[in-house]
Amino acid sequence: MEIQQETTTALFIKIAISNWELQNTRLNALLEKLTDEQIAGFTAPDRNSGTYLLGHLTAVSDALFTYLELGDRLYPQLDEIFLKNPDTSGLEKPPIADIKAAWHHVNTTLKQKFDAMQPEDWFTKHSAISAEDFAKEPHRNKLNILINRTVHQGYHMGQLAYLVKK
Amino acid sequence: MEIQQETTTALFIKIAISNWELQNTRLNALLEKLTDEQIAGFTAPDRNSGTYLLGHLTAVSDALFTYLELGDRLYPQLDEIFLKNPDTSGLEKPPIADIKAAWHHVNTTLKQKFDAMQPEDWFTKHSAISAEDFAKEPHRNKLNILINRTVHQGYHMGQLAYLVKK
Repeated sequence: MEIQQETTTALFIKIAISNWELQNTRLNALLEKLTDEQIAGFTAPDRNSGTYLLGHLTAVSDALFTYLELGDRLYPQLDEIFLKNPDTSGLEKPPIADIKAAWHHVNTTLKQKFDAMQPEDWFTKHSAISAEDFAKEPHRNKLNILINRTVHQGYHMGQLAYLVKK
Repeated sequence: MEIQQETTTALFIKIAISNWELQNTRLNALLEKLTDEQIAGFTAPDRNSGTYLLGHLTAVSDALFTYLELGDRLYPQLDEIFLKNPDTSGLEKPPIADIKAAWHHVNTTLKQKFDAMQPEDWFTKHSAISAEDFAKEPHRNKLNILINRTVHQGYHMGQLAYLVKK
């Protein structure tokens, strides 16, 4: 069986993006189900709050603009609260409505940028790996970052699911 | 920039397998850190135990032999306890040492099978989609299943991480 290059490339990009979208869809469905009060609650005793995890995921997805070289980030100010410091930092968090709006804005904009990317762009190095390391490990490309971040989102999704009352 | 087909295909497969292996490595590192008593504990009040989640992940990975058409499953008997029924079913669970052994055996054997697969095998349909649906959605191939299961493992990994005492 011969694989057509164009088909293979398009398929793999579709696989990566569709798995990323599936995680977003699931988190959006969860957010629809939860009140702001529930989101502000803790996922387990002495563990991260829903607010923190939603802010964290928003910051991590927003950082994709940098990693994938898609232009300026939309919400770099989230890093201090949700990436560089823990939930318990005492730093004031934005209202949940604002974090939710940022979450949706980041994903909508990323999707537009993804749609405008050329297939070969996905096979170039991401911004956090040196040209030297990329020459040795060419699988550490932009597609890899998207898949890695999708799994990361799944990780916290498993925790956020605990906000739903049993 | 022209992408070489062979390289592209090899890269996709490497991305998918390396992300799967990364999740296995992380779970193995977590298991090394936990006592059997901790694994038997609950990930959060009234939520799944570590025992159940480890059995569940083992059963889901074992099912990959079927989905990826890699031969007979190693532990189909786990499905009844860890897939078809909840933690609270009252069904007797195997000792943790046995579940851990199964977990490692499944992953080692899967890796051997992956290494023996031809690149084009990954782009064929998985066993749970009809030929008709696959014709319409050709991205639902074996690589897609592996990525989907990797994200699923990440989901429960986020919960298993709560077994570590703070």
